[in-house]
Amino acid sequence: MSKQVPYKTFLSEGEIPQAWYNVRADMKTDHRPIINPATGKPATLSDLEPVFCTELAKQELNNTDRFIPIPDEILSFYKMYRPSPLVRAYFLEKALDTPAKIYYKYEGGNTSGSHKLNSAIAQAYYAKEQGLKGVTTETGAGQWGTALAMACGYFDLECKVFMVKVSAAQKPYRKAIMETYGATVTPSPSTETEAGRKILADDPECSGSLGTAISEAVECALRGDSYRYVLGSVLNQVVLHQSLIGLESKAAMEKIDEYPDIVIGCAGGGSNLGGLMSAFMADKLTGKQAPYFIAVEPASCPSMTRGKFAYDYCDTGEVTPMAMMYTLGHAFIPPSNHAGGLRFHGMSPILSQLYHDGHLDEARSVTQNQIFEAATLFAKVEGLLPAPESAHAIRVAIDEALKCKETGEEKTILFGLTGTGYFDLSAYEAYRLGELEDIPPTDEDLARGFATIPEQLTL
Amino acid sequence: MSKQVPYKTFLSEGEIPQAWYNVRADMKTDHRPIINPATGKPATLSDLEPVFCTELAKQELNNTDRFIPIPDEILSFYKMYRPSPLVRAYFLEKALDTPAKIYYKYEGGNTSGSHKLNSAIAQAYYAKEQGLKGVTTETGAGQWGTALAMACGYFDLECKVFMVKVSAAQKPYRKAIMETYGATVTPSPSTETEAGRKILADDPECSGSLGTAISEAVECALRGDSYRYVLGSVLNQVVLHQSLIGLESKAAMEKIDEYPDIVIGCAGGGSNLGGLMSAFMADKLTGKQAPYFIAVEPASCPSMTRGKFAYDYCDTGEVTPMAMMYTLGHAFIPPSNHAGGLRFHGMSPILSQLYHDGHLDEARSVTQNQIFEAATLFAKVEGLLPAPESAHAIRVAIDEALKCKETGEEKTILFGLTGTGYFDLSAYEAYRLGELEDIPPTDEDLARGFATIPEQLTL
Repeated sequence: MSKQVPYKTFLSEGEIPQAWYNVRADMKTDHRPIINPATGKPATLSDLEPVFCTELAKQELNNTDRFIPIPDEILSFYKMYRPSPLVRAYFLEKALDTPAKIYYKYEGGNTSGSHKLNSAIAQAYYAKEQGLKGVTTETGAGQWGTALAMACGYFDLECKVFMVKVSAAQKPYRKAIMETYGATVTPSPSTETEAGRKILADDPECSGSLGTAISEAVECALRGDSYRYVLGSVLNQVVLHQSLIGLESKAAMEKIDEYPDIVIGCAGGGSNLGGLMSAFMADKLTGKQAPYFIAVEPASCPSMTRGKFAYDYCDTGEVTPMAMMYTLGHAFIPPSNHAGGLRFHGMSPILSQLYHDGHLDEARSVTQNQIFEAATLFAKVEGLLPAPESAHAIRVAIDEALKCKETGEEKTILFGLTGTGYFDLSAYEAYRLGELEDIPPTDEDLARGFATIPEQLTL
Repeated sequence: MSKQVPYKTFLSEGEIPQAWYNVRADMKTDHRPIINPATGKPATLSDLEPVFCTELAKQELNNTDRFIPIPDEILSFYKMYRPSPLVRAYFLEKALDTPAKIYYKYEGGNTSGSHKLNSAIAQAYYAKEQGLKGVTTETGAGQWGTALAMACGYFDLECKVFMVKVSAAQKPYRKAIMETYGATVTPSPSTETEAGRKILADDPECSGSLGTAISEAVECALRGDSYRYVLGSVLNQVVLHQSLIGLESKAAMEKIDEYPDIVIGCAGGGSNLGGLMSAFMADKLTGKQAPYFIAVEPASCPSMTRGKFAYDYCDTGEVTPMAMMYTLGHAFIPPSNHAGGLRFHGMSPILSQLYHDGHLDEARSVTQNQIFEAATLFAKVEGLLPAPESAHAIRVAIDEALKCKETGEEKTILFGLTGTGYFDLSAYEAYRLGELEDIPPTDEDLARGFATIPEQLTL
């Protein structure tokens, strides 16, 4: 074993990146700016400042600096749980009998259970620096809310979380862990906001969506000047913070003389895939290497594979700016039996543009029974119970490894294992009992969503 | 930061110990042998073979070999999740403003969520090697059952788990995760065994205990010759396998030029503390160093602090051999509101003897409100939500660090962080809402338990 690649490759704490990588600086066609719906014009810093912390708003608009230094206090927090391991999936390779070499970057080893903490601690830090009382946010599966609750607990900031109602019901322990860290958790839609009340008036049984929860959190942040809204995905700043994942992955692979042929990430709002592919996308955009990138999304919420590339609101209640992105329409809500996370109707503008331009090579959708099958196999052989979100990437990594078995190619596959499935056991149970259904949207469902996309904007 | 001890010290995979350390070989007074109640004599290998896998029975009786080599297949599995990190609790030190240096060995980073996997994979391996169909066991909080389910899933062994009924009700997701790994889970007491039926006849509402679940699992293993019984604590073989924790801790501390003044572990059956202190106890028994060892147990189940040192059965139904240990009597059942784990009525014979002889220096009991207070602080500052079991050690580590603050001593404290609290969120919730009660046993409760301890045996 002495010369073999180890099961887990760790960087030292001194090798944690000292700066985030801003992919926009390397994009030849930057994505089109977000639009302030009130003016119909590109949002300016002063448009964004009432909603976002000032420093984060600056990051949101920054398309020139390739690297943005990470403040010391954030670096120090990162050392609690980073660098995260790069794992060689020897056991999975053996189970699949594939010549492919499979690696995964495991981001679920912290208490929040996912990669979301990388951005949560950054956003909480800037809120604290600005002297705010607290932040508001939404959460779907609960990963982001938990991460933010931890980050705010660390900085003694108030944290108000609107949690998609169906998720709050499916995952009572997510609520408990957020509250343990001092957050307040409100199932959304709620009666606490105009946006929530409006939706409940139309449909008192509404099971909620990320889009609705975003509306509520933004509305709540806009009351007074002591709070700002923070978001765990979609935004440029989040893709920026998550670049850590890709930077560490590349550095760890260099240590073992590896480079991925294929990079696979699950994609809901794009935070994980955007982060995982960062350093490798830099290589592609600068002509150094050209790995093949695959975004994996749920068949129930197929924004890239079946959506439109258009300006749309980021929330259901139309309180946010509009972004140019792949979208199913801001009123689209995936079926409530969908247990795989990744429920956002749109996709990160950065990832959308990269996909549109062909740098992000492929989007693929998979059903929830497919992902739980992959997750269960993975759990048995690799000893790690994945979050359903992560299982999207596992599914496609397995499919690609099985293709290698057919062709005999020894491809190097890297995927992102974003989180643990500790809080998704009711979904695992449903899968095991054969009770998970797959209900991808019909063309009529999609048409109803598309009808809510605003008229094409020309700038 | 360059010369500072890192937050997390990892050994390389090549530095995982290649052999388990058998503390009995260094004990000047070995603990007294386990007794076969049928013969009244020390149990022989042939007495143990119907219950335990043969190789494990040999380990159980081995008091001569200081080191027992770890088979390659087990070592390979260990590489999935080991070496586990040794963490310097800088954030906790800062929060306490203590001159003490606090370290913890974190064993909860695997999917089973605790250190139990170290012994589970060994026991499953020997069962597989022996050509058995499967194994039976009991679980309380669910950590052991989950670990064993994972290990059996890996080796394709059947795994039948009797789970203490009150825990099964408190922790439905523990059941789900065991089933995901292919185990069958039966709440205990059940009607599937004589032992269970007898207890239910006396008390149909019985909330169960580890002692009862052990009776059921042993009875079940004794049917036919295709199954054996395995146990996650108490036994000599378990303390042997868990020596990994202490061996790794000592090696990691050597890397950073540290040695603990105080070693603290929670103690239910003794698996964690026995493992954590192993390499350090070797130093003490051989006269090289003399760290101060503290066992921490719940006030609700105080076997060392309030129990008797006597021969007693390891289970309620009197189907197991008798062991010389600190015991509350084999009919003792802690109050059902006790949420802190560590519910066993006795204590590992090895640890009992070491305590009796003064090598294990101190046993201390703490209440559940004290441990959740410590756990909540720890989670906020160290970013890691501990299992309630682990929080016993955290509580005392904090108390010792605060003593250092008073005296100004810069002691080096090492404690075992055995697992995550992901499956204990209802208890965290109850604590947060002020609903956790502490009901330590009264003298009358204890007297009732003691009355079930058999007459003193003289050998």
